[in-house]
Amino acid sequence: MGELLGVAVLGAGHMGADHIRRIGRRVGGARVVAVADPDRPRAERATAGLDGVALHTEAEAALDTPGVDAVVIATPDTLHEAALLAALERRLPVLCEKPMTPDPAGALRVLAAETALGRRLIQIGFMRRYDPEYARLKEALDAGELGRPLMLHCVHRNVSAPPGFTSAMLISSSASHEIDAARWLLGQEITAVTALRPSPSTQAPGGLQDPQFLLFETAGGALVDVEIFVHCGVGYQVRCEVVGERGSARIGEEHGLRITGGAGARTEVPQDYVVRFADAYDRELRAWVDAVRDGRVTGPSAWDGYAATAVAEAGVRALGSGTRTPVELAPRPPLYG
Amino acid sequence: MGELLGVAVLGAGHMGADHIRRIGRRVGGARVVAVADPDRPRAERATAGLDGVALHTEAEAALDTPGVDAVVIATPDTLHEAALLAALERRLPVLCEKPMTPDPAGALRVLAAETALGRRLIQIGFMRRYDPEYARLKEALDAGELGRPLMLHCVHRNVSAPPGFTSAMLISSSASHEIDAARWLLGQEITAVTALRPSPSTQAPGGLQDPQFLLFETAGGALVDVEIFVHCGVGYQVRCEVVGERGSARIGEEHGLRITGGAGARTEVPQDYVVRFADAYDRELRAWVDAVRDGRVTGPSAWDGYAATAVAEAGVRALGSGTRTPVELAPRPPLYG
Amino acid sequence: MGELLGVAVLGAGHMGADHIRRIGRRVGGARVVAVADPDRPRAERATAGLDGVALHTEAEAALDTPGVDAVVIATPDTLHEAALLAALERRLPVLCEKPMTPDPAGALRVLAAETALGRRLIQIGFMRRYDPEYARLKEALDAGELGRPLMLHCVHRNVSAPPGFTSAMLISSSASHEIDAARWLLGQEITAVTALRPSPSTQAPGGLQDPQFLLFETAGGALVDVEIFVHCGVGYQVRCEVVGERGSARIGEEHGLRITGGAGARTEVPQDYVVRFADAYDRELRAWVDAVRDGRVTGPSAWDGYAATAVAEAGVRALGSGTRTPVELAPRPPLYG
Amino acid sequence: MGELLGVAVLGAGHMGADHIRRIGRRVGGARVVAVADPDRPRAERATAGLDGVALHTEAEAALDTPGVDAVVIATPDTLHEAALLAALERRLPVLCEKPMTPDPAGALRVLAAETALGRRLIQIGFMRRYDPEYARLKEALDAGELGRPLMLHCVHRNVSAPPGFTSAMLISSSASHEIDAARWLLGQEITAVTALRPSPSTQAPGGLQDPQFLLFETAGGALVDVEIFVHCGVGYQVRCEVVGERGSARIGEEHGLRITGGAGARTEVPQDYVVRFADAYDRELRAWVDAVRDGRVTGPSAWDGYAATAVAEAGVRALGSGTRTPVELAPRPPLYG
Repeated sequence: MGELLGVAVLGAGHMGADHIRRIGRRVGGARVVAVADPDRPRAERATAGLDGVALHTEAEAALDTPGVDAVVIATPDTLHEAALLAALERRLPVLCEKPMTPDPAGALRVLAAETALGRRLIQIGFMRRYDPEYARLKEALDAGELGRPLMLHCVHRNVSAPPGFTSAMLISSSASHEIDAARWLLGQEITAVTALRPSPSTQAPGGLQDPQFLLFETAGGALVDVEIFVHCGVGYQVRCEVVGERGSARIGEEHGLRITGGAGARTEVPQDYVVRFADAYDRELRAWVDAVRDGRVTGPSAWDGYAATAVAEAGVRALGSGTRTPVELAPRPPLYG
Repeated sequence: MGELLGVAVLGAGHMGADHIRRIGRRVGGARVVAVADPDRPRAERATAGLDGVALHTEAEAALDTPGVDAVVIATPDTLHEAALLAALERRLPVLCEKPMTPDPAGALRVLAAETALGRRLIQIGFMRRYDPEYARLKEALDAGELGRPLMLHCVHRNVSAPPGFTSAMLISSSASHEIDAARWLLGQEITAVTALRPSPSTQAPGGLQDPQFLLFETAGGALVDVEIFVHCGVGYQVRCEVVGERGSARIGEEHGLRITGGAGARTEVPQDYVVRFADAYDRELRAWVDAVRDGRVTGPSAWDGYAATAVAEAGVRALGSGTRTPVELAPRPPLYG
Repeated sequence: MGELLGVAVLGAGHMGADHIRRIGRRVGGARVVAVADPDRPRAERATAGLDGVALHTEAEAALDTPGVDAVVIATPDTLHEAALLAALERRLPVLCEKPMTPDPAGALRVLAAETALGRRLIQIGFMRRYDPEYARLKEALDAGELGRPLMLHCVHRNVSAPPGFTSAMLISSSASHEIDAARWLLGQEITAVTALRPSPSTQAPGGLQDPQFLLFETAGGALVDVEIFVHCGVGYQVRCEVVGERGSARIGEEHGLRITGGAGARTEVPQDYVVRFADAYDRELRAWVDAVRDGRVTGPSAWDGYAATAVAEAGVRALGSGTRTPVELAPRPPLYG
Repeated sequence: MGELLGVAVLGAGHMGADHIRRIGRRVGGARVVAVADPDRPRAERATAGLDGVALHTEAEAALDTPGVDAVVIATPDTLHEAALLAALERRLPVLCEKPMTPDPAGALRVLAAETALGRRLIQIGFMRRYDPEYARLKEALDAGELGRPLMLHCVHRNVSAPPGFTSAMLISSSASHEIDAARWLLGQEITAVTALRPSPSTQAPGGLQDPQFLLFETAGGALVDVEIFVHCGVGYQVRCEVVGERGSARIGEEHGLRITGGAGARTEVPQDYVVRFADAYDRELRAWVDAVRDGRVTGPSAWDGYAATAVAEAGVRALGSGTRTPVELAPRPPLYG
């Protein structure tokens, strides 16, 4: 395990630069050896202060840089499929930001390619599984502390969304984390989606359906409800309560500094996911580096990426039709059993 | 205001005996002068230690007892309508336990009788409006602290339900409090109901759909979701979160003694509504006595009783059909404007 | 138990008027039949709307009013001794606001008079014993849930104190509640006091030693520390943590409405004791009325009043001397065994 | 900044092994190049899986290993002085576990040596300064959010202490973190110590004074109280409340998973500092590596190490004498201004 893992990072935007910084500063055992981004100055800014990093404008060139042992994909979503296929072709382990692909069809092509190789190389960046609170909740569920789970109540709020954020993106982008968390916590596939439309907030841009209230039904009969509210105006709030036959458990309560001052007893609320989940991103990357150096791929699989895409697509259709919409999943290859 | 208000209590069962005890011990300004219950020994037990209480087996005889100024109705639901009409006939102010009647048709007949009198005499026992936490939440909403309300997330859990509790009663009995609370907090009528059926808990008797997850849509476009779980096995938990355009607020968090002992930091959870809402029952009765002595009737009206019955009836139909079910309300008489 | 208990209230100031209002409105089983206050218009305001109340300027005249069965003393502290002795002389049960007397010598004279009668007639208004949170803490301690108690950490903060509040009054007036609570919770007498002087807050009037930090040692070896801060500027905060051999327990955490808005997640803090302990005052008065009607006197005794006065006096001396000051208690008469 | 920082770790016991693991796994930018421990197999276990680490039995040999750029000292306390002087001699930046030395005299010799060099090379491992909660509390204080600080209430509880833990070690070992935290948060030196002795817990070994209650007075007139309880039997609990002229703030409340199950609503309490402060250790080491690679030494200084030792020594004397004991500090060299 002596050598540092050589990593190629595709995409030097917000998430890509973040991963580059993590590998350089917070995660031992790896170093960035290549970065691909069509915007050369952006790539230079993201790698400032790092030695020995080859900068490229093309993803494939970065993958072919000598010393590359593994890949992080942080390009725009529409480029994920090509990058994943290129990594598979080179037998390179890859950590790909979510969503795996913009639609289920692309995800199925990636699944087919990985299945053809006969072994897992792909991990999808559903980093909530690495958050200590979610991890502890999963542990409590698996240990039977709550009995069989019956319902999940989820809340996902942002201060505001960037310009251009569409009603469909509340599901495909924001809720994708809840989709994966629900599948993972319950160990069940989602079989149907309903999307309800409360009166939109006047704080949201005109025409945006914000908030939304989603209902997911699962193969085991559990019901998952999700509030998505991306212009809540207050803070970044992610909560999850599991209700089981023998008890319930909650995570995501605010636990910052508690000041008793002019306005009462006040607990601070983080403003974005970078603060709330900083630790989860670190742990995700460390776990991935450690596993890859051991020759293994663990964590959320390409199947998880595909299923999340399929559920989100059904959700977007449900939002449009206003009706309960079944989720149709392809058969699950034994590789992901 | 010198004289004590003379109260006739109809029904000496659990709730009736409780009201008798409150008037005798915890609420000044009133005394019980008559009690009606077909079970004479039960009436005697409920009034033990009180002087000057006339015991009857018939409601009408109790109402006609000299010194009766006002009535508390705590009979079985099916007898409410007759008791209400008898009280109206005698122009007696009345506090009637919820639900006002078992079905909307009976409620409409009571509404018609009160409307014909041209003045309000009836208050319905939706005592959550008198709970300090709910009252403060209402105040925050009305003061605009949260902006326009968009969603309500409600939870209503009991340790267990009595034998014979049916799936419909989760809506008509348990959820009736949430129905009234939603209408009151939002100041909007409920226009449609959907009832979802998570996989039932094996802790519930066979065949009972428990838990249920209800969705209420309101005239102003707000969305209300309600978890009803009457065999949760842990404690009596009633929570409510309002999500507004400018912030959210929650009530119902556990706030009993916090013990840090063997099992971690533990906060006690009350076991039933008698403990959780003891104070609300006291305040309700005090407010009613004070108002009646001042010649006024305030609090939840017969219209509120009717509307709750109509929503519950739609909810029970929604549970049966599995589909979104509109709520049809009769026109609102100006008396309840 | 049929007749209402006839109560004479001595003193119609803030606390006296409050008790009059409680007896009229919130506590059944009693009525105010006489009020004494040298300020006649004040007595009239306090009894407005009540029938059949005899108003007097002299305490003794009020006690001699026909129909007086029991007494509430809410006069200035310096008049307590005379009023208590007058009540004892007439064999009237009495609820006396704390402190029982301004100094231990006066308290001992009252003790002697009650002891000579051979039965308890006096209850002192240490109403925290009736607060549901304190009561539950006492119950947990007595049930051994925490093991043997080793330490108590107490906090007592006011928004601000009235003009003329002296450094000694932080102990004799504010801390007297903590003195009683510590004695009662632990079931042990306090044997020594130390008073520490942090740098005073500039929000307090010049020359006032505010905050103070008091240490009480008990006969059983427990240590009690008390922060008294009467110009904290924020809210009325009373907290208490018991640390035992097997666990710890806390009461007094804020539990008002929780709003997640602009400033984070905020819990409201009550502004004064009237809000925080409203319920405790109600329960205290109800328990007293119920016991007296049953011919009993329960609750904090004259001995508790004396001991609190003796500890406070030692505390004031400790504040002056800057050293650990032993508390000298007279022998405890068997009546208070 | 390209090259990895070569670190020699002195001591491969619990803390040393932990630092080795952190540098290998969780902290980028550094690698362990030498380890010294008299117990060779222990050193081998601590470095298993790492390449290129020279193992030594003598500290000086490790420091002289080619490629060593900086030192981490995790030997027994009694060897700190010699190791620090050896590192200073070689002009190597050093991160030394607390306490800097067992007594103030040794600390003064180290101060003299560093002062003679004319620049800071030493950082002391007071890692609470790197805990996000403490850091946020410091920030709130420095920003004036609470006004001038008047009091600090601290609690430090362990489940149990290892065999051989003495009454003096409750101060010199356990409370040393609170000593540094108080000095750092307030920006003031501690001028006097009093140590109170509540009745010891029967859960502690015979003869051990556990719990203790310490009082620190500061140069600015603030008062700090500290409960130290090392056999509390429940969990690892570290709390701190600052009371200022304009408000108060608390950290250290439990915020693990909240389960509402059989025993009420339960929040988990971590069992030891490794769980509670895992993140703080990571951040401390990362900050140190980053600063050293930039040619700087920041964080707690040798002066902080000395002052903590001097306060602890006065505390141990105060425990023995039972009286208030002044702290005598040597003049502060301008290097630490």
